[in-house]
Amino acid sequence: MRADGQGHLNELRRRLAELASLEEVLGILGWDQEVMMPPGAGLARGRQVATVALLHHQRLCDPGLGRLLEELAARDDLDPIDAANVREALREQRRALRVPPALVERWSEVTVAAHPIWVGARERADFAGFAPILGELVDLARRKAEAIDPDRPTYEVLIEEFEPGMTMAALDRHFGALRAALTPFIAELRGREGPPLPAVMRARVPAATQEAIGRELMGVLGFDFERGRLDRAVHPFCGGAGVHDVRVTSRYAEDDLLSGLLAIIHETGHALYEQGRDPARADQPVSRARSMGWHESQSLLWENHVGRSAEFWRFLLPWLGERLPVYKGAALEAITRALARVDFQNEIRVEADELTYPLHVILRYELERDLFAGELAVADLPAAWNEKMRDYLGVDPADDRRGVLQDIHWAGGAFGYFPSYTLGAMLAAQIFQAAQRAEPAIPSELAAGETAGLRTWLRDQVHVQGSRLQSDALARAVTGAPLGPDALIEHLRGKFSAAYGIARSALATP
Amino acid sequence: MRADGQGHLNELRRRLAELASLEEVLGILGWDQEVMMPPGAGLARGRQVATVALLHHQRLCDPGLGRLLEELAARDDLDPIDAANVREALREQRRALRVPPALVERWSEVTVAAHPIWVGARERADFAGFAPILGELVDLARRKAEAIDPDRPTYEVLIEEFEPGMTMAALDRHFGALRAALTPFIAELRGREGPPLPAVMRARVPAATQEAIGRELMGVLGFDFERGRLDRAVHPFCGGAGVHDVRVTSRYAEDDLLSGLLAIIHETGHALYEQGRDPARADQPVSRARSMGWHESQSLLWENHVGRSAEFWRFLLPWLGERLPVYKGAALEAITRALARVDFQNEIRVEADELTYPLHVILRYELERDLFAGELAVADLPAAWNEKMRDYLGVDPADDRRGVLQDIHWAGGAFGYFPSYTLGAMLAAQIFQAAQRAEPAIPSELAAGETAGLRTWLRDQVHVQGSRLQSDALARAVTGAPLGPDALIEHLRGKFSAAYGIARSALATP
Repeated sequence: MRADGQGHLNELRRRLAELASLEEVLGILGWDQEVMMPPGAGLARGRQVATVALLHHQRLCDPGLGRLLEELAARDDLDPIDAANVREALREQRRALRVPPALVERWSEVTVAAHPIWVGARERADFAGFAPILGELVDLARRKAEAIDPDRPTYEVLIEEFEPGMTMAALDRHFGALRAALTPFIAELRGREGPPLPAVMRARVPAATQEAIGRELMGVLGFDFERGRLDRAVHPFCGGAGVHDVRVTSRYAEDDLLSGLLAIIHETGHALYEQGRDPARADQPVSRARSMGWHESQSLLWENHVGRSAEFWRFLLPWLGERLPVYKGAALEAITRALARVDFQNEIRVEADELTYPLHVILRYELERDLFAGELAVADLPAAWNEKMRDYLGVDPADDRRGVLQDIHWAGGAFGYFPSYTLGAMLAAQIFQAAQRAEPAIPSELAAGETAGLRTWLRDQVHVQGSRLQSDALARAVTGAPLGPDALIEHLRGKFSAAYGIARSALATP
Repeated sequence: MRADGQGHLNELRRRLAELASLEEVLGILGWDQEVMMPPGAGLARGRQVATVALLHHQRLCDPGLGRLLEELAARDDLDPIDAANVREALREQRRALRVPPALVERWSEVTVAAHPIWVGARERADFAGFAPILGELVDLARRKAEAIDPDRPTYEVLIEEFEPGMTMAALDRHFGALRAALTPFIAELRGREGPPLPAVMRARVPAATQEAIGRELMGVLGFDFERGRLDRAVHPFCGGAGVHDVRVTSRYAEDDLLSGLLAIIHETGHALYEQGRDPARADQPVSRARSMGWHESQSLLWENHVGRSAEFWRFLLPWLGERLPVYKGAALEAITRALARVDFQNEIRVEADELTYPLHVILRYELERDLFAGELAVADLPAAWNEKMRDYLGVDPADDRRGVLQDIHWAGGAFGYFPSYTLGAMLAAQIFQAAQRAEPAIPSELAAGETAGLRTWLRDQVHVQGSRLQSDALARAVTGAPLGPDALIEHLRGKFSAAYGIARSALATP
């Protein structure tokens, strides 16, 4: 390394740590807003967040940081972790720098204005009331993407905000295969009698009891309360300030214990990723989660492959029975089958089960893709939405409130976000297979309530790796194969065939 | 106003709002640290706070802001509120700008290092272990004060951090008069039998019940929960982000209901000041509390002149009886007399009663004054401390842990802070007298649990005034007289004479 090399690296780390601190501050402010903030503080909080976000943007776009990054990027003597830091910071800075300030400002104004318009339009099931500002958001997003990279498809540039390195060609391939496998399988199940819901699953359990059990269960999963908390919020989430300060929230329905517990398991999956990040690099981009999809892979792995698995329930049911007498002696198989029930009438993504969820996402992916390719007009979204709902899921949305207006994402300008949910599901299945290959004792450990084996493997393979590798290379390193839909298809077929009493061999392979 | 006047004012307001936002963010981070933060997040939180504080410092010291302020300060056509904003911002900027960066950095390093050294030394009652770093802190504080204003006494410049406009001449006069009045009065009481402690005041009340009652009592005092919260912390405080987001904390001892309730009343006094600030100017210095002493005047007014008054207890005792059967039928006079008990053996400032508290403060004021005048060496502090404890309070501290090492302030470099406590007590007495002159119904309203009269008067006279006037002018405007010790002396003599069965006329006037 050249003589000034270490000095430049130290200066880079100082600047990156400052950016990380501001991101952590925004994380705490965001958590506080959902969990603690008194209702009258909303406007002032908006001003506080805008001030910190603007300072972050200014520091990120600082020409001094740009020169430092370009200089370091040209070196060939950086160690791989420093090189990854430079690569990640450069990508983030370029995305921030290339969007003209006037467009940044307009974007911020329109997304703020769109939220209440969407809330009102959804309430009245009035897509026409939302369409004009949605059209403006689509137009602004297109201009942003063109400013960032005029040589790539608009939608791919938008997706990269959440999934660096992902291409539309790959998404078309993955989602096409998933749709082809799941659509006929769901149609096949629809004709059959599903598993009944055991009465015990509707037993009333007070919210405070559920929360205490949830907190204890987080401990079983390996959540470190020295570096995190559990609280309540309207919508469960995992937030806070990373590595040293990870904050999970959940909500509780008194007649639906498992809904709250599974939300806690899901968010704890996110939390274990955060707590497993490289503590020595906690204030550097290289320690951050590889992508939204990778983050979701950890929550879905714990929720679906552990929390809804027959193995883990061998431990969980008697454990619950010790805490809630009503669960004592409940039938294990009835509960685990019931965890794979499909609601064939469901129109709502966030209420979807594991099997139908990917089709809700694929529908949105296809609509966004066609919208940004200029092949679909905003005004035609409701019809296209309803048609795909019928085709993929056999459901006719009651109205646009339960159809095209149901999600908050577009009102916030988060185009390209949806794919991450199903990329996460694909990764979760693929990673869980790889974990079991590497550590064959995992299923029997889970059946004994021992989670350290799985957690440690995930920490070493995924969490501590952060963004050292690009997404593709990380998938190969962790699972021995590129990302693909096969593991998810296999997992869903196996679980739902069993729940619906279909012999697996009876299914045609697509 | 000149043509560019409004533009400059708008630019000033934009910059001041940015500074206010960062201060509010620091307020939320500080509250979170005491109330919510998981223990393992301490180091990361230190980095987050340092980053925001540094950005605040840089923005405050920005030459562009300096030019704007100097330009506006030279105008004679500003309205008084804008002029006050300019005056307050200029003072703050000058204090920040004049301290050389190397000294700022050293100050920050030494105060961080001093805290654990003080904790250890206090635990071992080992002043010699704390003396070297205390000496360094005194030296650094002296250099800071000389950098800020070489033409004024060092200690006065330090005091001005907390009490803008206060002079040592005034403090010497006020505190001298207080000491002369209170020392013989306390000696006189010492020989007498004090009021007994009614058994009901030691009745066990679970912490959760105390907290619920405290929350309800905050409502009685007029705290607006739309713009604030109540939580628990080891040491009660009032924090948060001002006006729209005021956060009170308390702690509860199960065998001492009144300790927790009076802490809540005290902190609610601070909170009402914050909630009463001018909402249209919430992000400007002019809306901020006039000084630490003014802030303390509001907490002490509600704690001592309402919460410990015979009038308010006529309401409070039956109100408590409705919530806690053990208080039903308790003797009103026995309780209100007991609220004026003096612990003549007490060595600890934070445990001191209303009567002896000012002498704890005056002792510290005199030691700090002599230290910065070069008339007292750090090594001689313990002996000087103990001598004054004997002279003023007739108490011999058991050791330095319960003597010179008891306070956290010096380890944090907060020299000049102590006077504010007793300036607050003086102001509280003077303001409460003025309030009763202006609104003679206040005592009978308090006896009926009606606080709106007093609260509205305080809001209009004090809270909404913020820093529009300088401290002296504000005292005259609110109370019709300059700040002085007479009202406090009269209040303490009256209350404690009654509790100790001394006819008021029997006392010589000092």
